[in-house]
Amino acid sequence: MRSFEEYRETVNEALLPALRSAGPMPEKLEESMAYSLAAGGKRLRPVLLLASCETAGGNSDEAMPFACAVEMIHTYSLIHDDLPALDNDDLRRGKPTNHVKFGEAGAILAGDGLLNTAAEIMARAAVQMNDTRGIRAMACIMRHAGVSGMIGGQSVDVASEKMEPTEEIVTYIHRHKTADLLEAAVEAGMILAGASQEMTESGRQFARHYGMAFQMTDDLLDVTGDAKLMGKNTGMDAEQKKMTWVSLKGLEKTRKDAENEVRLAFEALDRLPWDMSIHRELTGSLIDRKY
Amino acid sequence: MRSFEEYRETVNEALLPALRSAGPMPEKLEESMAYSLAAGGKRLRPVLLLASCETAGGNSDEAMPFACAVEMIHTYSLIHDDLPALDNDDLRRGKPTNHVKFGEAGAILAGDGLLNTAAEIMARAAVQMNDTRGIRAMACIMRHAGVSGMIGGQSVDVASEKMEPTEEIVTYIHRHKTADLLEAAVEAGMILAGASQEMTESGRQFARHYGMAFQMTDDLLDVTGDAKLMGKNTGMDAEQKKMTWVSLKGLEKTRKDAENEVRLAFEALDRLPWDMSIHRELTGSLIDRKY
Repeated sequence: MRSFEEYRETVNEALLPALRSAGPMPEKLEESMAYSLAAGGKRLRPVLLLASCETAGGNSDEAMPFACAVEMIHTYSLIHDDLPALDNDDLRRGKPTNHVKFGEAGAILAGDGLLNTAAEIMARAAVQMNDTRGIRAMACIMRHAGVSGMIGGQSVDVASEKMEPTEEIVTYIHRHKTADLLEAAVEAGMILAGASQEMTESGRQFARHYGMAFQMTDDLLDVTGDAKLMGKNTGMDAEQKKMTWVSLKGLEKTRKDAENEVRLAFEALDRLPWDMSIHRELTGSLIDRKY
Repeated sequence: MRSFEEYRETVNEALLPALRSAGPMPEKLEESMAYSLAAGGKRLRPVLLLASCETAGGNSDEAMPFACAVEMIHTYSLIHDDLPALDNDDLRRGKPTNHVKFGEAGAILAGDGLLNTAAEIMARAAVQMNDTRGIRAMACIMRHAGVSGMIGGQSVDVASEKMEPTEEIVTYIHRHKTADLLEAAVEAGMILAGASQEMTESGRQFARHYGMAFQMTDDLLDVTGDAKLMGKNTGMDAEQKKMTWVSLKGLEKTRKDAENEVRLAFEALDRLPWDMSIHRELTGSLIDRKY
């Protein structure tokens, strides 16, 4: 198994060529998509996809278009999320957000372009495979990214500013806005490796709990974190009256709930017969996450 | 062969169930997507897809998810196009545009949701097929809809307000913003029917010329058309200083160029061995198009 950092480098090398493989496109559009795609980030989702595929016996070269696709989907969701009509954020990964740099119209189209390109490169990769793994992985990713998944979570998150906070609503937002795309990464990686349904389901459960813990620690960092270290503004949730785990439960209970999700994530990993060291490392690091 | 109107009815019946097949989703999001999807429209692209499939010997039931997908893609592009940051239109198909009704954030997410759902239902349909037709049709549609296709055209259209008009730029906009998705519909229909590459290429050429003529008559109608009949505001191109065929060439030359594209569209149809009566009817009706 390669390390997280090694996977991350292969993803960073593959992302822009994958974008450009969508064919000749207007310069300004390419520049705007590339700006956000190259802006850094942990590459958590593509690394999880590649590592899940490889540890389950799959070929990570074959999985790369799908890894790039989940990162493109994640990036488009951030671009649209940052727009003035949504979260109105001007800083992301230490840089001006896409609409600050390219204008609102440019940011809307860059987001559309990244989502479309994600589907395009997966479809192209699936055509090349001589079985149904590619198209099943793609169906899985689009479902988790879609209206009953990430977009659904995003939609409730936007509306939540005007709602009375309940655990049910916050859970819905975290589960869909955050955990769904992480589930997609792990599940799709395992589907591409030809893993059994049972194994894939354990992988999905890991990602669900990891995702819930991840979002809880994100909510904590928005209150207690260092903006400079994180490369984005803090205190935004409170300013925008966002419904978060912290606003509902307080700091101490959120820390406890996050620890519980971490425990459940480890238990799911224990049900898998493979070397899950990268998954374990990521899960463990949530406990004292700084950015 | 069924008539255009009969195809149109089957599409209208299939669209909302196809949307809902993406699974349980937040009520507001579903309402917003359904509002724009059900707002009428000619259903040109899905009917072309179904008719192209059936006349080439394919099964239109099998093609229906792909037909719904192209209409979802068309609808999302209109929702995002109408946004204040882009064309800032408040009327579409005789009704308030999506962001007027649901707010900007709602409209951005509804657009994202329709694009994602389009990919999702195609991927799901392709998994069910026991050959590569579905995934090839999907790859074709996503490519035409993408950054080297429709989104590329849209992106240049937005930027064109500040550019010196040239035939090259206007042709790029028409070809990609309008013709590309029509090409996708005809090509994908024929791919699903298992038509030869040569036949599919003639179908694509028909759609290119039909699309160019369609956009030229659209530009004409924006100047000479009846807003009530069309269900949208006219005179918008001039107001927004849009680069159109009319602004570049004048009314008379645009009419002549449209007639030439219509002639080339008919010639492409003549190269196909099947009953292309719906395609012929649509092409002929462009000559005295009123809406």
